[in-house]
Amino acid sequence: MKLFRFGPDGHEHPGVLLPDGRHIDVTHFGGDFDEIFFETDGPARLAHWLTAHAPHCPDIPADSRFGPCIKRPSKIICVGLNYAKHAAETGATPPAEPILFFKATTSLCGPNDNVVIPKKSLKTDWEVELAVVIGKRASYVELDEALDHVAGYAVLNDYSEREFQLERGGQWDKGKGCDTFAPLGPYLVTADEVPDPNALGLWLCVNDEKLQDSDTNDMIFNVKTLVSYISQFMTLLPGDVISTGTPSGVGMGFKPPRYLKPGDVVTLGIEGLGEQKQMAVGYQ
Amino acid sequence: MKLFRFGPDGHEHPGVLLPDGRHIDVTHFGGDFDEIFFETDGPARLAHWLTAHAPHCPDIPADSRFGPCIKRPSKIICVGLNYAKHAAETGATPPAEPILFFKATTSLCGPNDNVVIPKKSLKTDWEVELAVVIGKRASYVELDEALDHVAGYAVLNDYSEREFQLERGGQWDKGKGCDTFAPLGPYLVTADEVPDPNALGLWLCVNDEKLQDSDTNDMIFNVKTLVSYISQFMTLLPGDVISTGTPSGVGMGFKPPRYLKPGDVVTLGIEGLGEQKQMAVGYQ
Repeated sequence: MKLFRFGPDGHEHPGVLLPDGRHIDVTHFGGDFDEIFFETDGPARLAHWLTAHAPHCPDIPADSRFGPCIKRPSKIICVGLNYAKHAAETGATPPAEPILFFKATTSLCGPNDNVVIPKKSLKTDWEVELAVVIGKRASYVELDEALDHVAGYAVLNDYSEREFQLERGGQWDKGKGCDTFAPLGPYLVTADEVPDPNALGLWLCVNDEKLQDSDTNDMIFNVKTLVSYISQFMTLLPGDVISTGTPSGVGMGFKPPRYLKPGDVVTLGIEGLGEQKQMAVGYQ
Repeated sequence: MKLFRFGPDGHEHPGVLLPDGRHIDVTHFGGDFDEIFFETDGPARLAHWLTAHAPHCPDIPADSRFGPCIKRPSKIICVGLNYAKHAAETGATPPAEPILFFKATTSLCGPNDNVVIPKKSLKTDWEVELAVVIGKRASYVELDEALDHVAGYAVLNDYSEREFQLERGGQWDKGKGCDTFAPLGPYLVTADEVPDPNALGLWLCVNDEKLQDSDTNDMIFNVKTLVSYISQFMTLLPGDVISTGTPSGVGMGFKPPRYLKPGDVVTLGIEGLGEQKQMAVGYQ
């Protein structure tokens, strides 16, 4: 099942992409794609509801905006330097265990919204990433059970202001949580449709030039390892997001580095999960 | 006004401590102390409501548990090394600008709940901190207007697992967000009752031995500077928490270091904001 949310920013409604290609409005199912939805076995309940109601659900308006594919979660945990080639391009040694940091949940936005270059930013960079959405509360989860706690997968662009992240004192979070720095979606693809989350091609272009082109099989720590590992340090709630790191090809890795300027268009996608498109704009 | 929440974990009700010392249940006001409450001028509406209804509100049961004084916010942003003496005891150079990191919001708990020492933890440490609760959305806020965006203040114990934070790869967040690592309260004291947030004594004891004893006037970056500064990097939502750093006297700073073991009792407080008491327990 492919879940999405559509409508104006902050007023999204839930929708489902059917196998026949229709994007339908499932507002009448009741509830949004949030913590309660996942906590109460929402995907299974929705699938059951659709068997009777899908034919009567309206198509969404053709010009609908897509919002983030889930409602604001309790947290977005990110993994740093999780692809061997990307670790190399940043000059870092591949980590011995996962590097974790957070994105502010206020950075969430729709997959095709503009990305706003923050005031005084000169180093806004891109990072295509596989996002994992938690379906079932996870605390001290064993490796073999980790994937049972996953609801599904989505595309996330982990935008990063490199000066804020690396040159402004101490911790990465400062450059990761700016508004619009976490486009998520278009779809949350439920786990049953993703037999192996570590066998997915992913790519990113800036102005049609392909700069990232890799496969999630190149992760240093795979999805089940990450879910289990993170759950040793904090409880993952239903709806929480883990962004699993980015492959090589980010702006910081070029010589000289390449960063976004207003008017640049970023497109990205992951095999089976859909595509995103953002235009960079200056802060108004 | 002094706001609190009482009742079982996850099922708290809102309450108010009246000037006459009564702790009253204000459930009938409607709504919890959450983002919507602060966004819609909740403290002023509640104060007005109390003028008519306070005499009819029931006292809370005498054995009530206190929950975190606000409902789960979108984020808890923390400031590192923000007292000169604490920076010195950790061996760090005082920062040129604020160091920011996040606590997972799943770490929130009541002010007198047990603190759970995580599995495999040997270095669970304490940090008494002044927490600032945002009242009004803040993005690119000027210094002179920063305090207009503050709803009030509370005590927070920024528990920290030093091995997870400093020896397990990269970023501090890993050792800051464990469950029960953010007791918040007992009271949110509204800003009108705190004429100067940078003139408050604060202290912490372990087993009745006073280990932290300072004043918020020793902050390197004061409250209004922090609110303005953080708002340059992300939007602060109503109800969001900023924890403003801890003074000297944390366990890591002793020679040899001192960390919590099951049975230890931590008490702490800030002038005018109330006191907390946690007992350390092992993970069950």
